[in-house]
Amino acid sequence: MPQNLKELVAPISDDLTSGAAEIALRAITVFQTVLSHPEDKTAEAIKKSLNQTAVCLVEAQPAMAPVFHLSNQVLTAVEKLDDPDKIKDSTNKVLADFERRLCESAAQIADNVFELIPAGELVFAYSFSSTVVSALLHARQKGRFFRAVCTESRPAMEGRKLANMLADGGLEVIHTFDSAAGLVLSECRACFMGADGISRPGVVNKVGSWMLAVACRELNIPIYAIAGTEKIVPEDRLFEFEKHERPGAEVWDSPSKGVAVLNRQFELVPFSLLSGVVTEEGILQEADIERHLGQLRVHESLSVQSESSSFAPR
Amino acid sequence: MPQNLKELVAPISDDLTSGAAEIALRAITVFQTVLSHPEDKTAEAIKKSLNQTAVCLVEAQPAMAPVFHLSNQVLTAVEKLDDPDKIKDSTNKVLADFERRLCESAAQIADNVFELIPAGELVFAYSFSSTVVSALLHARQKGRFFRAVCTESRPAMEGRKLANMLADGGLEVIHTFDSAAGLVLSECRACFMGADGISRPGVVNKVGSWMLAVACRELNIPIYAIAGTEKIVPEDRLFEFEKHERPGAEVWDSPSKGVAVLNRQFELVPFSLLSGVVTEEGILQEADIERHLGQLRVHESLSVQSESSSFAPR
Repeated sequence: MPQNLKELVAPISDDLTSGAAEIALRAITVFQTVLSHPEDKTAEAIKKSLNQTAVCLVEAQPAMAPVFHLSNQVLTAVEKLDDPDKIKDSTNKVLADFERRLCESAAQIADNVFELIPAGELVFAYSFSSTVVSALLHARQKGRFFRAVCTESRPAMEGRKLANMLADGGLEVIHTFDSAAGLVLSECRACFMGADGISRPGVVNKVGSWMLAVACRELNIPIYAIAGTEKIVPEDRLFEFEKHERPGAEVWDSPSKGVAVLNRQFELVPFSLLSGVVTEEGILQEADIERHLGQLRVHESLSVQSESSSFAPR
Repeated sequence: MPQNLKELVAPISDDLTSGAAEIALRAITVFQTVLSHPEDKTAEAIKKSLNQTAVCLVEAQPAMAPVFHLSNQVLTAVEKLDDPDKIKDSTNKVLADFERRLCESAAQIADNVFELIPAGELVFAYSFSSTVVSALLHARQKGRFFRAVCTESRPAMEGRKLANMLADGGLEVIHTFDSAAGLVLSECRACFMGADGISRPGVVNKVGSWMLAVACRELNIPIYAIAGTEKIVPEDRLFEFEKHERPGAEVWDSPSKGVAVLNRQFELVPFSLLSGVVTEEGILQEADIERHLGQLRVHESLSVQSESSSFAPR
């Protein structure tokens, strides 16, 4: 079972170009596969498998909040049950509800973003987020004309995926390399990014988001994170992104001796640099996030262990 | 002769990874080759060849100030001469003086940079500049221990050349992708960049420099341009960098239909974002640059024609 689970989760762990919502959908499939395992007959065996799956998924993508929430909701739903069928039913209900809410949420978010896109102007979009893509294409389909700029998002280049999906959806797209963001940003009227996690100090997203937000403030351009409230996590969980260091060889495979190659995927953008977080509930500010945090309950299997990091967050 | 000249200048035009000082040294070689051309026997023929060479070199690298100065000094030195031997002697003297000053200047600049490198700390260096490399390695050789961070500098990746040269010279180097600059910058105590041109509004350097400078100000990190005074050019000449648009395919050769790929190499960093320009004369501020500009005289063959650009400078 653990070997099988490892294989099931590996593609999620290796995925550097999908947004957090997409990855949550794939985590639902992993739970469904585990649940259909014929060897798990007793309530105890099923709950143990679900527990291992939850821990394994969260470790695979520690920065991605929806994976944590999905896992947390599954474990919380079944913890007091002792009948195998009820456990399976409850789990399936959590999975179905989560998927439905992700889809409904995306539609509501798209409606909320619409008002933030100035007609006839250029907007900037960073990294890759299916929520951002659906919001921008929804606005285009509703008849708003605008152009989008995006940059490549080294090292995994998920910004190219964003450019192609926006262009295929009928938007005119300008694409350039990441360090040229400042050059094109001065022509933009709004900036959008996704979010992998949201908590007390701010939003965690792809590396580069912080510098982009600082540049936006310098140029007086509003910058929004676009994300469902399923991205809101406890503060200690948010900093799990610091575990997510990738091999340096993915950035450069042949440096001289004496060159250490750093490959971090995520960073924190404090609320002070953001114009707001566009969710299915509307545009949230820091106080709204605090309110959500007050209502969160975390299953003990998913509580965060203490850790250290050489590059502390700002 | 024009065909031959085109071939001589082509490698300079295609060079995206060398710093401006290196390219100036290669421009000296082009003048020397042209000067030795046996078919140019009359004073008029030699001056015409020198003139064509100067214009061609400046057009090949319109953003690189030393190429302009070298060309300007050659044309100014020979404009009133009418004896073939005197023209050749004067040109050779200008070329030799320019090369000698570039070398002396680099040594003096290195001494001036030494005081700005905090012992035992991490410093950030951006893009590629032979002046920056020589200054950092000189400090290391003088016994100052420190580590350097640099990023790759998409699309030509000249930051890798910088990383390797610093590491080969005995520095410990941390390397990452451009958008991760903000992540490592928070650990740095000083930031250095080169310059391709300097004039009234600020310093022109590789794209990404502006966003880096804004991030440095946000984090209270001093940021210096390191460059000889041969980088100071008239204001209209400075904006020649806007001519320097490269093919989009160098950034991405297979985007979807509807994606326009922008590939600009340079941008302006205003003096307000810089802690100073470290030259052979010391650390210069805006007023010192103004003083230099007042003393500049430009040969008529190298005056700038008016132009327009779709992305205006900030």
